[in-house]
Amino acid sequence: MAEQSLKGIGVSDGIRFGSVLLYQPNSASQTPVRETIDPSETDAELSRLQKAKDASYQELEDLVAHTRQTLGEDKAVILQGQQSFLADPSFYPEIERLVSSQHKSAELAVKQIVDQFVMIFESMPQEYMRERASDLKDIGNRMLAHLSGAQGVRLSEIREEIILVADDLTPSDTVQLNRQYVRGILTRIGGKTSHTAILARSLGIPAVLGIGDALDLLHDGDEVILDGTAGLVILNPEESTRQTYEQKQREEADYLKSLEEFQNQPAKTSDGKTFEIAANIGTPAEATAAVEGGAEGVGLYRTEFLFMNATSMPTEDEQFEAYKSVAETMAGRPVVIRTLDIGGDKELPYLSLPHEMNPFLGYRAIRLCLDRPELLSTQLRAILRASHYGKLKVMFPMISNLSEFRQAKAIFREVAEQLRKEGVPFDEAMEVGIMVEIPSAALLADQFAREVDFFSIGTNDLVQYTLAVDRMNEKVAPLYDYFHPAVVHLIHRVIDASHRAGKWTGMCGGMAGDPLAAPLLAGLGLDEWSMDANSIKKVKHKISTLHHEECKQLAEQALQLGTAEEVRALLGGK
Amino acid sequence: MAEQSLKGIGVSDGIRFGSVLLYQPNSASQTPVRETIDPSETDAELSRLQKAKDASYQELEDLVAHTRQTLGEDKAVILQGQQSFLADPSFYPEIERLVSSQHKSAELAVKQIVDQFVMIFESMPQEYMRERASDLKDIGNRMLAHLSGAQGVRLSEIREEIILVADDLTPSDTVQLNRQYVRGILTRIGGKTSHTAILARSLGIPAVLGIGDALDLLHDGDEVILDGTAGLVILNPEESTRQTYEQKQREEADYLKSLEEFQNQPAKTSDGKTFEIAANIGTPAEATAAVEGGAEGVGLYRTEFLFMNATSMPTEDEQFEAYKSVAETMAGRPVVIRTLDIGGDKELPYLSLPHEMNPFLGYRAIRLCLDRPELLSTQLRAILRASHYGKLKVMFPMISNLSEFRQAKAIFREVAEQLRKEGVPFDEAMEVGIMVEIPSAALLADQFAREVDFFSIGTNDLVQYTLAVDRMNEKVAPLYDYFHPAVVHLIHRVIDASHRAGKWTGMCGGMAGDPLAAPLLAGLGLDEWSMDANSIKKVKHKISTLHHEECKQLAEQALQLGTAEEVRALLGGK
Repeated sequence: MAEQSLKGIGVSDGIRFGSVLLYQPNSASQTPVRETIDPSETDAELSRLQKAKDASYQELEDLVAHTRQTLGEDKAVILQGQQSFLADPSFYPEIERLVSSQHKSAELAVKQIVDQFVMIFESMPQEYMRERASDLKDIGNRMLAHLSGAQGVRLSEIREEIILVADDLTPSDTVQLNRQYVRGILTRIGGKTSHTAILARSLGIPAVLGIGDALDLLHDGDEVILDGTAGLVILNPEESTRQTYEQKQREEADYLKSLEEFQNQPAKTSDGKTFEIAANIGTPAEATAAVEGGAEGVGLYRTEFLFMNATSMPTEDEQFEAYKSVAETMAGRPVVIRTLDIGGDKELPYLSLPHEMNPFLGYRAIRLCLDRPELLSTQLRAILRASHYGKLKVMFPMISNLSEFRQAKAIFREVAEQLRKEGVPFDEAMEVGIMVEIPSAALLADQFAREVDFFSIGTNDLVQYTLAVDRMNEKVAPLYDYFHPAVVHLIHRVIDASHRAGKWTGMCGGMAGDPLAAPLLAGLGLDEWSMDANSIKKVKHKISTLHHEECKQLAEQALQLGTAEEVRALLGGK
Repeated sequence: MAEQSLKGIGVSDGIRFGSVLLYQPNSASQTPVRETIDPSETDAELSRLQKAKDASYQELEDLVAHTRQTLGEDKAVILQGQQSFLADPSFYPEIERLVSSQHKSAELAVKQIVDQFVMIFESMPQEYMRERASDLKDIGNRMLAHLSGAQGVRLSEIREEIILVADDLTPSDTVQLNRQYVRGILTRIGGKTSHTAILARSLGIPAVLGIGDALDLLHDGDEVILDGTAGLVILNPEESTRQTYEQKQREEADYLKSLEEFQNQPAKTSDGKTFEIAANIGTPAEATAAVEGGAEGVGLYRTEFLFMNATSMPTEDEQFEAYKSVAETMAGRPVVIRTLDIGGDKELPYLSLPHEMNPFLGYRAIRLCLDRPELLSTQLRAILRASHYGKLKVMFPMISNLSEFRQAKAIFREVAEQLRKEGVPFDEAMEVGIMVEIPSAALLADQFAREVDFFSIGTNDLVQYTLAVDRMNEKVAPLYDYFHPAVVHLIHRVIDASHRAGKWTGMCGGMAGDPLAAPLLAGLGLDEWSMDANSIKKVKHKISTLHHEECKQLAEQALQLGTAEEVRALLGGK
C-alpha cells in the first residue's frame, strides 16, 4: 500500500513508530437490554442502579488516587469533577426518578439522562463547558458497564507497544494509559486545550489529535509513524521515509542528552553573568521534580490547585501543611507563592461565582479576594506561618491599580501583627510582590516599584490583555505573540523600574521557558526566570551560549522594531 | 405615611415628581383557557395559531417602523430580533408540532415552547443571551394576546402623567412609552446595560431600575419623587424633601438652559485655543441630530447598525447610499467612518460566527474582516464612492499590530485602483487611520504614526483592555476608570506620537464627552473630540472656562500621579 501522510494537530511532541490499535470503548449509545420494568421490580431496579453508582464512584476514587500519584494533583482534579457530578442532586436523582416513576430500566434511565446532559453541555458556548460533555459520557459508560457486569476494554491492560487510535479519549481513558506500551495517541477530534492533550503532555506520550475523517483510513495493525511535533501521521511509510524519521528521532534524543550537563549548573553567559532559574509548580509533589530538574527556586507556586482539589475551602492548617512542605522540599531556596487566582474560568464548586460574559476580564484573583477578605487573610496566615520553615515570598495576582496592592498589603500587615501577638514564629523579612499581568500595572511600574518588594511578569495574561487576544480561542490565537514589540516594551519598562528602585523582576509566563526569548530577556536584565521544570535544561543551555553585553545591544535593537516578525528574526527565529 | 427612601440603580438622569401607576402586563404564565383539543380540530387550531403568529409579526413590523422613526435604527434592531425569532425554524414549527402531533391547544403550545426557550436562555452564562429571555416572553405574551383576542394593557394609551412602576419592561413595552405622560420609570429588576436602560436614556425618561423587593411597598396613586441621577425613589415625600428636590430640578433646568448659547459656537478656551468637537453616530438619521446639536463633524460613524439591521449582507450600493447620505448631511464637515466592528458580542445572524469564551478578546472587527476580505473590500468601495459627496475619512477598528493595518491598507489601495480604472470619482486625498483601542497599538504609536493618517482613541475598549475589566460586568465595573494614570499615559503617548509625525488624534470613547476630563484632554492636546450629540454643549461650555496653558501644566501633573482618585481630585472631581 502506498505511503500516505495525514495531517492533524500536534499536541504533544516526539516521534514514534508503531502499529495501530483501534480502540472502541463501550458506548452510552448502545441499546440497553430492556427498556422498561414491571412496577413490582422497582425496588430491585433502584438497588441495582444504586450499586452501579456506588461502584462507579469507588472506581473513580481509585482512579483519582492513582492519577494523583502518577500525574499530580491538577490532573486528578479532572476526574474529581466526574465524582462530583455523580454526587450532583440534579443528576443521579433524575435517573432514579425515571426508574421509580416511569418504570424505565436502569440502563435506559442512565442513557436518557446522560444524553440529555450531554446535549445541554455540548450546546454551551464555552469550550470548558463543552469539554464536560466528555466527562458525562465517561460517567454514563462507567455506570452502564457496572450495570451489565461487563468490564469494558481496559486500556490499563494493554501489554504490547502500540499507537492508540480512537475517535476521542475520555479523561479516565487517558490516565489509564501506560506510557511503556502506548507509544503514541491519534484521535479523530480534539485540540490543543483538550484534556487528552494536557494529559498526553504530562505522560510524555506524543499525540496528534483532530485528524478528522482520515481516521477511517487506519486499521488494526497498520504501520505508522506519528510525529507529535509536526502534527503528522505517516501511514505505510516507505523505507526512505522511515530512515528520515529515524534520523530525526536520533537527533532529538541526542539534543536532549546533550542538555543534561547543564541541568544542575548555574545559568551563566559566556561573559560570566548568571541568572536565577526557577520552576513553576502547582503542588508540593512538583517541588521535588523541580529540584531534580535543576530549579534554583520556585518562581510561581500556583496555590489554586489546593482549592480546586477540595469539596470545601481548605482550612488554614491544611494550607499551612502544603506551604510548609514546599518550603522544606526547597530547603532554603526561594519560593514565590501566588495567592489564590480563582474565578473567571477557574471555578470552585463551594464558592458560588457569577457567570460572566468575559471571564478573563472579570471577577477573579485579587478582585475576588479583596471582596472576601477572609479568603486572603486565612491564606496569608498559612503562608506566614510556613515562612518559618524555608524562604517564602508572596505575590498578589491580577493587580491593576495601587489601591488593590495597598489593600492586600494592609491585610498582610494585620495578619502579621496577629501572629506576632500570638507569638507564632514567621519570617519578618518576607518579601511581598505583585504579578505584572495587566497592562496598567506594567505602565505604572515606577509607582508600584516604590511600594512592592518585587515584580513577577506573567506573560501569558499580559500578552492576552496587551493584544486583546484570548489565547485559548483558536480563531485569534495566531495574533497572540510575546515577541510583539509592545510586550517587549512593557517588560523593559517593568525591569527598568524595579532596578531603579533597587528591586528585582522575575517572569513566570511561557516566554521565560522559551530558549528563543533568552537573549532578549538576558539583554533586558530579567533577574529570575521561572518555567516548567522540563524547560530548565534547555534554557540553561541557551544562556550558556550567550554573551551578556551583546544581548543588551540586541534588546536595544528589539525596542526599536515594529513587528513581532522583526523581533523574532533578530533573535534568529523564524 | 412616613417618607421612605428606596435605593435602586439610576440608569437615566433627571428628577421627576408623580404618582405611581403599577403596570402588570399579560403574562405567559397565565393558565390558558383549555389545554388540549380534539384531533378533529387540529386544522382549525393550526389556522388560529398561524393567524396569531402573523398578527404578532405584523404588530412587530409596525413597532419597528415606529421605533426607527422615533428612536433610530439601533433601537429598532432590538425589536427586529423578536421578529427574526418568530421566523426561526427552531421556534414556531415546534409550537405547530405540539398542536398537530400532541393535540395541545395553541395557547398551551405557545406557553410550553416559550417557557422552554426562556429556560434555556436564562441559563446561559452570557448576559446578552439572558437578555433574550425577555424578548421571548414578550413574543409569548404577544401571541397569547392575539389568540385570546385581548388587547392587553396598551402602554401607548396612557394619557395621564405618571411614574410607571413594573417588575420589568420588555423592549416593546418601553418603546411604546409616551414621554409626555410617562415621567419616570421604576422597575424591580434590570441594570445599566439592560434594554430598558438604553431605551429610557434615548427617550429622555428618568429611570431607576433594580429596586428589588422594595417595589412591593408601592401602590397605585402613591406620590413619589424619582431621582434617576442618584438612583433614588422617595415614597410619600415630606414637604421639606419636596422643596429640596424642586430646587434641584430648577438648578438642573437652569444649567441645561445656560449651556444652549455654547451649542453652536466653536469650543474655545479663554486664551483662544480651539478644539474640533464632533459627534458619534450610528445611522444617517443621527447625522441631522448631530448637526443640530452643534457637531462640527462626525468623529465616529459606527457602520455596524447598517449590517445588524438586515437579514442579509447589505450590498455595496445599499452601503454607498447610507454613507453618501451622511456625507451630504454633514455638508463638507469631516466624517470618520469606522469599518465593520462586528463579532464578539455583536452578532450578525447571516454570518455564522463561533461562540467564544471571551468575546471581547476574540474574533471581531478587523480580525474578522481580514479573514473575510470581501466584507472589507465591498465596504471600502462603498465608502470611497461616497467620498465624492463630502469629506469622508476611514478608520479600522481593533488594530493590534502593524501587519493588520498594512493588510487593510493594501485592500484599500486595491479598491481605489479598481475605481480609478472604472473611472468612478472618489476623494484621492481621503485619510486612512486606525482606532487606538488595544494597548499594543497605543504602545507602538510612534511606529504606527509613520504609516497612518490619524488616530482615534476608543477609550471604552482601551480602558477595558488596559485594566483587564469588562465594563459590562457589574462585579468588576468599579475598577473601570478612564482616569487611571496608565490610561492617561497611553493617551499622552498616542497624541504625542501623532504630533511628532505631523498627524492628528481624535477620541471617540465616553471620556471625550465627560466635562470633568476636558482640562486633561485639552492639556494633552487632543485634536478632535467626538461624543454623543447631547454632550456637545456641556463640553463646549466646559472648554470655554479653561485656560489652555494651565491645562498643559495640569496634564503634566496628572502624568506623575499614581491613582485614578488622585487624577480625579486634580481635575476637581470627587
